[in-house]
Amino acid sequence: MHRLLLTKPDGRNLTLYGREPIDAALQAPSPFPEPLNASAHLRWHPLRGEWVTYAAFRQDRTFLPPPEYNPLAATRDPAHPTEVPAGRWDIAVFDNRFPSLGREQGGAPPPELIVPTAAADGHCEVVVFTQDPKSSLGALPLDHIDLLLQVWGERTERLGEREEIKYVLPFENRGAEVGVTLHHPHGQIYAYPVVPPVPARMQQVAQEHFVAHGRGPLQQLIAAELKANVRILYAGPHAVAFVPVCARYPYEVWVGPIEPVPGFAQLSPAQRADLARALKTVLLKYDGLWQRPLPYLMAWYQAPTDGESHPEAHLHAQLYPPYRTRDRLKYLAGTEIAAGFFAMDALPEEKARELQQVEVNLP
Amino acid sequence: MHRLLLTKPDGRNLTLYGREPIDAALQAPSPFPEPLNASAHLRWHPLRGEWVTYAAFRQDRTFLPPPEYNPLAATRDPAHPTEVPAGRWDIAVFDNRFPSLGREQGGAPPPELIVPTAAADGHCEVVVFTQDPKSSLGALPLDHIDLLLQVWGERTERLGEREEIKYVLPFENRGAEVGVTLHHPHGQIYAYPVVPPVPARMQQVAQEHFVAHGRGPLQQLIAAELKANVRILYAGPHAVAFVPVCARYPYEVWVGPIEPVPGFAQLSPAQRADLARALKTVLLKYDGLWQRPLPYLMAWYQAPTDGESHPEAHLHAQLYPPYRTRDRLKYLAGTEIAAGFFAMDALPEEKARELQQVEVNLP
Repeated sequence: MHRLLLTKPDGRNLTLYGREPIDAALQAPSPFPEPLNASAHLRWHPLRGEWVTYAAFRQDRTFLPPPEYNPLAATRDPAHPTEVPAGRWDIAVFDNRFPSLGREQGGAPPPELIVPTAAADGHCEVVVFTQDPKSSLGALPLDHIDLLLQVWGERTERLGEREEIKYVLPFENRGAEVGVTLHHPHGQIYAYPVVPPVPARMQQVAQEHFVAHGRGPLQQLIAAELKANVRILYAGPHAVAFVPVCARYPYEVWVGPIEPVPGFAQLSPAQRADLARALKTVLLKYDGLWQRPLPYLMAWYQAPTDGESHPEAHLHAQLYPPYRTRDRLKYLAGTEIAAGFFAMDALPEEKARELQQVEVNLP
Repeated sequence: MHRLLLTKPDGRNLTLYGREPIDAALQAPSPFPEPLNASAHLRWHPLRGEWVTYAAFRQDRTFLPPPEYNPLAATRDPAHPTEVPAGRWDIAVFDNRFPSLGREQGGAPPPELIVPTAAADGHCEVVVFTQDPKSSLGALPLDHIDLLLQVWGERTERLGEREEIKYVLPFENRGAEVGVTLHHPHGQIYAYPVVPPVPARMQQVAQEHFVAHGRGPLQQLIAAELKANVRILYAGPHAVAFVPVCARYPYEVWVGPIEPVPGFAQLSPAQRADLARALKTVLLKYDGLWQRPLPYLMAWYQAPTDGESHPEAHLHAQLYPPYRTRDRLKYLAGTEIAAGFFAMDALPEEKARELQQVEVNLP
């Protein structure tokens, strides 16, 4: 993996990654000349026992781009700089201009309110998956996806080594149906000052399972899914993809290494290559299902970066497409949002069969 | 409160409620002649440590209604029976024909799988708020809303006294933006065989707070919101409505009695009347905000029906409209759905001011 660390005119970081060496003369553009001069802050939710972050500047996007302007494409016209330079690189990572988490220099201290507040320590990054605005994560070559897994690993290490960062979550929102307005292939990384509610719950459950059974619940589930061989979409020497028996979304799929590793950085090259193959298989099946790009939310869960050892952790992705049939969205409504209790009107076995029947041929 | 208990031709229950006496000769129609012959089942999610319910028959709606057919309107044409009869009544409650929870007679036992499974004990009801398909909850007279609070109380008592029911959640999904296709004013009630994840978390947090401080966190927050008087939308002698300081949705509002009561059935008549007033005020402000019906999810949290005493419980509604501005939806994306960590790009104080400025005049 080759990399080049740069700083944008507004002070934000940009790192370019490549399978090939990167020209050290490349410079970092920014659509924004001035540093961002505002901070997010946290407020304590006393009924749910969790933090909520407020970044009111996020709506203040006065920037008026020319038609067809794509901020994630390489800068062609210096009069309209984008977020990334022209040149030979494969993947770019830069600080989000409108971060939900992060202390800006000169930002105001958190307000004094009737609940505890705090500075929104943390960090938000944007990950440009490719220079090709018409491509998609699943369409990228295997060694490009492999590079992305390495990049996620490096970002997790860099962010996680900061004292205040307790959890790093790489994710991709894809498609207008999940609120994405920018269709250039990209994802995001959120680095949190706490282990957020969902990973915290999963960690607690996994720890209890590990203590009781000597292995984590995902390791046990993967072994059982492979043995049952009903919902499997990909089974390689090191990685697996399947519709989980307990899917909460109709086309939910999990992808991960068969043997537990705590995070991207601990994958062996062989594991990483097979994980890239498993992920590409799933994404191509998704787009093949209805012969159109399937929207989804993809989140990668790994061990907290809280300085503790996490033998219970098991790196994996959970993918949630928002459709329940070709033309019907699955809305999260009363029971899901208010109670956290998911109701499915499709069986995972049926949805797995649909995805199994989509043929995918990898080199 | 007057009531009439009826049974539909397909075996489902229908209860009619009225401010005035109800004609005992009314009969219960059903669009479906045959009993439902299928069951939902639960599967254990080993990573999240929670149950998921599967009701695969829910998509199998072969019923082909005539154009403009409204199953929640009173039956006018016996050849096309709806769910409720013509006659004088105000509110109707009936068993959901396609329940996400509930054991049907003759339904198959839960399948044997690689995770624990169980019969989906529980119950799902539909609540028709009014006979007028063009009305809305907020437009109903105060004594009609008061009746609804009584009905929610009675349903909670009736469902909660069942041994297997641990939690009763009345909610309303309103608007196409939250997935509602049937625009006749109505809500739902889910009765769960467990305390679901969100109420369970809130109960745990409230119990710890109660032990430490001698009162629940909502009682303390309401006192602080009233004292701060920044985000208040309604403050009556017994009930209050406000944008909470820790709102997770831009136009989120909470409505509840000022003094804690565990559930609807424990409201005094004076508390109930003021709570109806608070709720109506909020709903009229919502629709007045942009001079159009504002979609929302409204959920009413109360004490579990698990046979324990719950001094920490405090009945209240949380309302989540899906808009962040007049024409922009708030999508739940990576951080909210995958991490459970909410990011807001608006301050609750600003959104409260917008709602405060909507004038509402109640009799």
